[in-house]
Amino acid sequence: MINYFSSDFKLGILGGGQLGKMMLYETRKYDIQTYVLDPSDDAPSKIACNYFEKGDLMDYDTVYNFGKKVDVLTFEIETVNINALKQLEKEGKKVYPSADTLEKIQNKGRQKFFYKDQQIPTAAFQKFSTLQELKKQVDNGEITFPFVWKSTQGGYDGNGVAVIRKPEDLTTLPDTECIAEDMIHFKNELAVIVVRSASGEIKSYPVVEMEFHPEANQVEYVICPARVSDRVAQKARAVAKQVSEAFQHVGILAVEMFQTQTDDILVNEVAPRPHNSGHYSIEASYTNQFEQHIRAILDLPLGATDSKVGGIMVNLVGAEGHTGNVIYEDIDTIMQMNGVTPHIYGKKETRPFRKMGHVTIVHENISEARKIAEKVKNTIKVISKP
Amino acid sequence: MINYFSSDFKLGILGGGQLGKMMLYETRKYDIQTYVLDPSDDAPSKIACNYFEKGDLMDYDTVYNFGKKVDVLTFEIETVNINALKQLEKEGKKVYPSADTLEKIQNKGRQKFFYKDQQIPTAAFQKFSTLQELKKQVDNGEITFPFVWKSTQGGYDGNGVAVIRKPEDLTTLPDTECIAEDMIHFKNELAVIVVRSASGEIKSYPVVEMEFHPEANQVEYVICPARVSDRVAQKARAVAKQVSEAFQHVGILAVEMFQTQTDDILVNEVAPRPHNSGHYSIEASYTNQFEQHIRAILDLPLGATDSKVGGIMVNLVGAEGHTGNVIYEDIDTIMQMNGVTPHIYGKKETRPFRKMGHVTIVHENISEARKIAEKVKNTIKVISKP
Repeated sequence: MINYFSSDFKLGILGGGQLGKMMLYETRKYDIQTYVLDPSDDAPSKIACNYFEKGDLMDYDTVYNFGKKVDVLTFEIETVNINALKQLEKEGKKVYPSADTLEKIQNKGRQKFFYKDQQIPTAAFQKFSTLQELKKQVDNGEITFPFVWKSTQGGYDGNGVAVIRKPEDLTTLPDTECIAEDMIHFKNELAVIVVRSASGEIKSYPVVEMEFHPEANQVEYVICPARVSDRVAQKARAVAKQVSEAFQHVGILAVEMFQTQTDDILVNEVAPRPHNSGHYSIEASYTNQFEQHIRAILDLPLGATDSKVGGIMVNLVGAEGHTGNVIYEDIDTIMQMNGVTPHIYGKKETRPFRKMGHVTIVHENISEARKIAEKVKNTIKVISKP
Repeated sequence: MINYFSSDFKLGILGGGQLGKMMLYETRKYDIQTYVLDPSDDAPSKIACNYFEKGDLMDYDTVYNFGKKVDVLTFEIETVNINALKQLEKEGKKVYPSADTLEKIQNKGRQKFFYKDQQIPTAAFQKFSTLQELKKQVDNGEITFPFVWKSTQGGYDGNGVAVIRKPEDLTTLPDTECIAEDMIHFKNELAVIVVRSASGEIKSYPVVEMEFHPEANQVEYVICPARVSDRVAQKARAVAKQVSEAFQHVGILAVEMFQTQTDDILVNEVAPRPHNSGHYSIEASYTNQFEQHIRAILDLPLGATDSKVGGIMVNLVGAEGHTGNVIYEDIDTIMQMNGVTPHIYGKKETRPFRKMGHVTIVHENISEARKIAEKVKNTIKVISKP
């Protein structure tokens, strides 16, 4: 085995955001040297890595030259220059997840066709090179309202996705390559974190459930374990593993799925990296998703994926009407509650709906955790300095 | 409340060893700015703090000037310049634990007299300014073999402590101020981590037990919860709280105790900082000792001290006959075991018995954890590169 610990081995991470920051807790724990590339001087990962480089993740030369400096290269964000990754792989550099996997996932159209080819259950869809083509099909009545529109490129945190209910909605869309997807009236939105190592060892985490706000159609709580039957949970984990195997994915893969009214599982989309839906694992799991990602890409044995206790994650997003230097109002109040851990990502400036952190609530009894989570949600506010 | 999170607030830490390093995981989680002072350029805390300064912790000016740069000052090692801390306090700087508390603890003679004054149960002892004085008392038969000799100053990891069984043993001792303590034939050596906040909120952790190697008289496992009766556990936690209150201690206080043959609790000694006997808390507790220390010194609400699961800690010390660049032999084998987490402190050079890291084993069943811990102990070896 390669000696990764307190050695000259270097792990490169493309992207220095909060996911990279949380990954660095684990590389520090193992004393693994890390190099980080990020366009921002205020990147949350800037401290805690051994070497930080400011640079454009979409620029071929920047990514290629950065990759040459390290032994293994990974990423915490998908929008990176794939051709640079391909060239590095050609030259024998270990890149995990691989450029090929990332390329299949980066473009949502390609991702959907891949599911089709691999007989992975997913919502029916059509792809269009332009908005015009889509409109034509709608006029022909080939596509009926409502449906889900997705830009094939660069969608992030709900951007590039829209529910189209009537002709007027089409006028709001940008003219890009896109897909039109059947709208699924799901019972639950579920996610499963799968981890697969370079040599193919694979494990899945328990199913998590996204609980939506009754009015605002927005995820409020990520709950582990999901409140679904064992049959549904087993099916979801089996599908998630199938997806990871199909991509020959190495590292953490977050698989987002719909549980239909008839308890079928449909894959919605995946993220080839540690993911918001796995943050609960830091406090709740025997091995958290960030340590697990490091183990997988370094081809170390995978850790246990089961939970010590129930976990719920609440996102901390900037409050509406607040822009400027951040204040976490009443954070001390939630810190009084049992099993409550705030995570502050380290962004100095808040903006409406900007992801500024998250809070994990753990408890041996998940319904107790759910009650505390609601108190947390109604207490802490991410505002700006007056 | 002061705004500590993603703000201009600065926490200073004297010492940049592994305890400081683990404390930084928590300041990063909360995005609290940290300044670290340490004499070594290779200090494990050097990365992950916001500002690192190389300097002598016993030098008045160095510590004073460093302290002036921060809002709250703490330490991860006791051997720091106390007069500088006193002057900083005079000028209104918040120093936690206080210079006064540290002064009472730093000198083992003073520490013992303090217990006596406060009616805190501890082994009987006498103090001597020189080795000669001690020898005289032995010759007079005022002190009988066996007894425990302790240097009042600068003992660390068992240095400055010796069991004296016969006259010849006295010849091996350095001529320093010292105490002679009754030797306690204890049933168990126990420890309790107490946390007390600046405003006096106080909580204690479950009792941990030091399990010794049957032949070599050396701690092998730190086990939480200790395998003792509830009565003994309650007594130990009560005594530990009494000690923290007596010192008016702020932050983490590790109280090491003996359980006598008659189930009395005697305080052995304390450490005014996060401690080896609390490392299990990172994986096992709802709030680990490092986060708890930060909460206490910043006067934030204290977190829950109970455990999610049973925890056992095994130290990783350099193997005999090995000096040089470290290798953690068979670390991959222990990483295959459930609930096993190695912590690598980041020291490049190993030496016989040097503390290089620790391994935590967690399991809902503590006797299962104990079995796995033994496997861990017999598998991983800290050796040097051939």
